[in-house]
Formats: sequence, structure tokens, C-alpha cells
Amino acid sequence: MVEYTGFKDILVALDAAVLVVTFNRTKERNVFTLPFAQELEKVFKLADEDDRVRVVVVTADPKGPAYCAGADMSAGWGGFSDPNSPYATSEPGTRVAKAINDCRKITIAAVNGHSAGAGFSALQLPFDFRFAWAGGKIVIPFVRRAIAPESLSSYFLPRLVGLAKAKAIFLTGGALTPDSPLLDGLYYQSFAERAEVFPASLAFAKELAANTSQTAVALTKDLLGHPLDTIDETMEKESRILIYLSQQKDATEAAKSFIQRRPAKMEDKLSGIKTSWYPWWKTGSKL
Amino acid sequence: MVEYTGFKDILVALDAAVLVVTFNRTKERNVFTLPFAQELEKVFKLADEDDRVRVVVVTADPKGPAYCAGADMSAGWGGFSDPNSPYATSEPGTRVAKAINDCRKITIAAVNGHSAGAGFSALQLPFDFRFAWAGGKIVIPFVRRAIAPESLSSYFLPRLVGLAKAKAIFLTGGALTPDSPLLDGLYYQSFAERAEVFPASLAFAKELAANTSQTAVALTKDLLGHPLDTIDETMEKESRILIYLSQQKDATEAAKSFIQRRPAKMEDKLSGIKTSWYPWWKTGSKL
Amino acid sequence: MVEYTGFKDILVALDAAVLVVTFNRTKERNVFTLPFAQELEKVFKLADEDDRVRVVVVTADPKGPAYCAGADMSAGWGGFSDPNSPYATSEPGTRVAKAINDCRKITIAAVNGHSAGAGFSALQLPFDFRFAWAGGKIVIPFVRRAIAPESLSSYFLPRLVGLAKAKAIFLTGGALTPDSPLLDGLYYQSFAERAEVFPASLAFAKELAANTSQTAVALTKDLLGHPLDTIDETMEKESRILIYLSQQKDATEAAKSFIQRRPAKMEDKLSGIKTSWYPWWKTGSKL
Repeated sequence: MVEYTGFKDILVALDAAVLVVTFNRTKERNVFTLPFAQELEKVFKLADEDDRVRVVVVTADPKGPAYCAGADMSAGWGGFSDPNSPYATSEPGTRVAKAINDCRKITIAAVNGHSAGAGFSALQLPFDFRFAWAGGKIVIPFVRRAIAPESLSSYFLPRLVGLAKAKAIFLTGGALTPDSPLLDGLYYQSFAERAEVFPASLAFAKELAANTSQTAVALTKDLLGHPLDTIDETMEKESRILIYLSQQKDATEAAKSFIQRRPAKMEDKLSGIKTSWYPWWKTGSKL
Repeated sequence: MVEYTGFKDILVALDAAVLVVTFNRTKERNVFTLPFAQELEKVFKLADEDDRVRVVVVTADPKGPAYCAGADMSAGWGGFSDPNSPYATSEPGTRVAKAINDCRKITIAAVNGHSAGAGFSALQLPFDFRFAWAGGKIVIPFVRRAIAPESLSSYFLPRLVGLAKAKAIFLTGGALTPDSPLLDGLYYQSFAERAEVFPASLAFAKELAANTSQTAVALTKDLLGHPLDTIDETMEKESRILIYLSQQKDATEAAKSFIQRRPAKMEDKLSGIKTSWYPWWKTGSKL
Repeated sequence: MVEYTGFKDILVALDAAVLVVTFNRTKERNVFTLPFAQELEKVFKLADEDDRVRVVVVTADPKGPAYCAGADMSAGWGGFSDPNSPYATSEPGTRVAKAINDCRKITIAAVNGHSAGAGFSALQLPFDFRFAWAGGKIVIPFVRRAIAPESLSSYFLPRLVGLAKAKAIFLTGGALTPDSPLLDGLYYQSFAERAEVFPASLAFAKELAANTSQTAVALTKDLLGHPLDTIDETMEKESRILIYLSQQKDATEAAKSFIQRRPAKMEDKLSGIKTSWYPWWKTGSKL
């Protein structure tokens, strides 16, 4: 049994099949520190392993000053600017972003406050869905603070919104809101009131948790999050996945329930996927 | 002379330079069966080879219950869930999608009815243009039916609409219409009435057939459908193509007609492309 | 000291840290000739090397007949259709587009007139920002003139606006305007009057020049313009860049000025980047 213990900077609660992660340094505007990043990386790895979890929702106190205000610039760059540290080739933001991307459960960022820097790059872009407060300021100031895109945002942003918008966002370093044309399509839904964001996200999460197959979700996310290079490779992988999934209990139940016009009860577990070609992606840089 | 014989599940007719393919299992909602997929794969390979064809339009009976209702779930997964079958690494939907992508003629899906599953993934995404009935329901329920994206949709959808929208479409598994914000840009044009979709598609097809170069279209599609990995590789390939095409009869005629302010009569044939670097893409998976 | 001498087809002027390049063949509609292309390639290479330059703005005479009318078709394909020429694997448009993409300063196209062909592909797509006259006609007629996408447009357009729109743009070969839905997101801003485009672009350029770090801009552009293939490679590169930049003077000044709520004075120079992993991209085709 996976246990969520030892967390201080985040609160973790399992609500049916939805894991709710709430930032716990509200007064400090949930700034992105090393311990905070380490806890976030850990909780997404646990959520990935925990068969009880189908959806992860991340959020903040809607009455606090911010969702996440980015790195704490008053503290300088802390321990992770040492080229000999374990973070030299994987700064904390990239590790969090990678853990979120690699988590094979549906992930939702309930962005119910202002965000800046890593509060956008690490804590919004790698998620499957972003729900937002329409009044939230989003500041992505890298070039104005003499740094470059981090937390894998140079990878995700062009893929999420296209290169034209990604270039404009990064090179202006300005302040946006969820309805800015540059962010078109990035937010699944936005709300007038901060307090509305999390409940709507949770209801959406529960509906998906109840009516999707955990294994089908995982393999769908894997195809999108670890894409193959070519059409022919995609063809092979999609075909193996289709054959594999169609022989599992969930597929039988889904077909049966569809014909019987009743909700499906899909119970296959992610940990139960056993096949020679899974996972297909390699980890580690070849550079 | 390419002949279109032996088809049962599709009707095939050559209207000037436009090949019209009409699904022929209207009562069965044109569900995506193995024989249907085999005929579709075949007709796109023939259209690719047939120098008479400049545009392919695929459509359904606008009075039928659906454009294509996807796989027939009542029949189970049929013969193609056998891991030892020839489809183990190329399920029928991927083969159809690949044949459409590889067809070097302009391809248009005239989606004049509801669609679901492979009726969207295989029979809409790989086309160059999608014309739609605005009232058409589009159901992409994979995660709710315990399967993952198929028919190369995990390859095409993120490229067509971006990763943010592709993730939302696949992971909600919901019902959309052509004007859904998640599908923004995917449909070239939509129409209030089902009966309007095909005539508009055909008129559009004929205008393109009359006024474009068959070889230029093919090489344009090849650059987009078999993209090179890097800027330098693209530079080399685009340059070779530009030099090659600029020396052909069509280019001479196009320049002359432009100056003379008259329609061009471009007659170079795709089968006439003979050069050492064409085609440049490899087929088959390296996995 | 970099000097901008020997130019005839373009006018070059340094306005504070903004290099303004004005097309100088107004009467000839700034058609894309070989000497014009050579000067453009050269000026972007110089701008890249010149530490004084932070932003490059390219524009035309707003009273002339066009921003750039593309290749001069009356002259045929000129010297660059010779397969033995040095352009056989790098036609002039691709060389200009590559030089703009490789220029590590912010680049802005102030498109204050009509454009066609290479006036769109080479002289708009590779820029970071496009400002436009809303009434400007944009003609991308390749398939109607019997050629295929050039000037690296088959690389850039799908990345900038997505594959669905890129296919529709290239295969219709029609005339668009900056507010066409197919070009959504491509233009950062558009203006009712031609005369407004350049002053607005220059003011935007000066604001960015004054308030961004030259080295941070360069490395941001490198991450977007020379993307790594995988998440793991991006992780390594972003991390090295973050550590490197955070140890430079600009980062210290940016943090200090932020806390002191005053404008930052960032003076690190691009030529000062010295580190074993930079640049990381290779040039030259492996084909």
C-alpha cells in the first residue's frame, strides 16, 4: 500500500480515486523552493505507482496571495546553482515537470490564484488539464530576469500552444491572464471566482475517475507524453496497444456495458500491465 | 490504366480529376470493419498511382444515420486482435490512415454526418481538408471504452491542433461538434445542412484540381507528411525540390500564364518524377 | 567593431540597440533576387555577432507597392536553378530563413505592405514577431505556380500554426490577410494603417532591448530554435543553461533590481558566453 507520509510543504489527501495535493506554504506564496520541489516530485511518483489513484488534482488555498509565485528571488538561486550538484543536469523544476509528465494518471492543475515563473512552467504546463481563475495574473518573466525557460517549458510550451505563441510568451516576458490570446487553448476552463476553481476541477476529476479505464488512460498518456518519432513507429506501438487493451477485462466490460446502456465498471490496474514492449521509452540523456 | 474494381463497401467514381469515394454501408452506419478498411487502404493506394486523379473526396450518404460510427462493438474486436495476425503491428485503422497520409493527391473528408472512433481518427485526421456538417456529433470515446488512440491519431491530432487540445480531446473521451473550441482549425469549413457538405467539397476539389500542379502538390504534401528532422535536412530537401520543380514544364507554364494573366494549364504527371533523391522517406519501423 | 557596409538592396541603421533593416528596392516591390537574399543573409549574421544589437526590425517603405512581392517571375528562376551551383542544397530563401532563425537577437518583421511567396516564407516566418498592416494581402501561391514550399516554410509553418492550418495554407495557395483564421496567432499585432506598423514595432523593440538580458534572450531563442529531441535532453540543456545564467552578472542585477523595484541594467554580452556545451546544435545535413 502506497502511503503519503512525510510531506510538509504540501497536503495530500485521497478522495475516492482522486488524489488532491494542496500547496501548504500559503503565506510564503508557495514559492518554489528545493524542499517543495522534492515533495512534488515524490508525490507524483507515488501517485503513478498507487493503483487507487486515477486522477491527481493540484491546487492552492484560494484565499492565499498566490497559486505559486515562482522561485524565491530574495534567497538567490540556493543550492541548485552548483554545477557539481546532482541538479546540474536536472534542476528541480525539470524534475517536477518530468515527474508530472511521467505520471500515468490524469493530472489537473486547479490554478486558483496568481502564478509566476515555475508556478507556470513546472506547475501548469506538464499537466493534462489546467482549470483557472480568470482574474489570475500569469507572469513568465525569464528574459527580464536574465534566465531562460526552465522546468521543461521550452519543451512543453511550443507543443501545447505552437511555436508562434511560445516565442511571443517567452520573449516578451510579460504578464498574461488565462484568456490572453497567446494562451488560447491552454486552459480547459476558467472561472470568475477563485473559490470556484477547485470544486469544478474535483467534480471533473471524479467524473473521469468513475468512467475511464485506468490502463487505457495510462497508455493514452504514454502515447502523447512519450511520442514515437515516426509514423511507422507510431503505427507499431498503437497497434500493439490496441491488441493488448482489447484483450483486457476493461475492454470486455466497456463493450458489454455500452450495449447494455449502463455505466461500465472498469477495474483493471495499471500495475497489472505486463508485456515485453512496455514501457517503450528510454530515460536519461544521450548528450 | 488504374481501374477501380472489386469494391463493395465503397463506391468509387472519377469525376474529371476528382476521385469520389462514397461509403456504401449506410444502413450499418458505415462501421469500420476489416473489409471496409481494406477497401479504403486499397483505393488510396490506387489514387496515389493514378495520374488522372488530382483530388480525392471521401463522403457518405447525407441521409444515412452516420458518416462513420467507428468500430462495430457488438462484433467484438474481430480478427485483428490476434497478436500473430499480419495486423499485430499495423491494425487496420493505422493502415488506412497511413494510406491516406501517403496518398500524394489532395485529400478531402466531406463529413456529412455523425462520426465516432475510427470515423474520426482514421477517416478525418489524415486528410488534408475536413469539410463538416456543423450539427455532426464527433465522439472520441477511447478512454471510456478501455482503449487508447488508434489509426495514428496519437501522431496526427497533436500535430494538427496542438498537444493541449489533443490531450483534452483524448482524455475526456467526450462528444464534440465541429465548432468546439477544442477542434479549432481542424475543419476547413462547416455547413448548417448535411446536404451542403459534399457539393461544397466537390466544388472546392475541382477548383484545386484545375489550378494546381500535380507534381507540386505531391512534393508539398511530401514535405508536410514526411517531415525531415532538422532545419539543415529540410534546407537540403526543399532546395532540391525547388530546383527540380522549377525546371519542369508546369513551372514554365505557370510563370508564362501568370505574366499573360490567363489560367495555367499544368499537365506534369506525378508518375513522371524521376530523381535519385525521391522518395526520401523510409518505410517500416525500426523498433 | 561590426560594420554594416556594402549594402545596396537594404538600408541598415543602428538606433540605440535596435538594428533597423529597410528593404531598398521599393519600386521593384522588393522582389526576392539573389543579391537581395545575399545581403539579408549577411546582415543577420552580422547582427548575430554585433554585441551592440539586441533587436532587429525588418521593414519596407510603407508608401511602396509591397513589403516584398516574392520572387521575380518575369526573370525566370535565375542562377539558382543550376543543380551544380552552391545553392543546389541551400536555395537563397532557405539561407535567409536559416540566418534569421540562427540570429540570437530578437527579430521582428514589420510587415507594412502586401507580401507574396518568399515575402511570406523567408521574410516573415523565421522571425520571432510579426507586426502587420491589417489590410495587407498575403499570397502563398506555391502549388498554383508549380513549386513547393521554400525558404524553410515547410519546417516553420507547421510548427508556428499547427499542421492543419499549414496544410490548408499551402494546398489552397490562396490570398489571405493577417486576420484570416488560418493565420491565427501568427501576427503579434496588426494595425489599420500601413504607417503605424513600423513605429509600433520600433517602440516594442526598444522596450525589449532596454529590459531584457542579451544572453538570456539568446539562450531562450536557442532552446526554441534548436530544440532538443527528447524530454531528457531538454532537461539536461535547460538545467545547464539555468545554472550558467544564474551565475552571470545579469542575473545578480536582475534579482537586485527586482527587490529594489527599479529597472535592471543588464549588460552581459552574447560574445561573452564561454562554456563547453555551447553551441549544442550541429550544422550541415546528414542526408
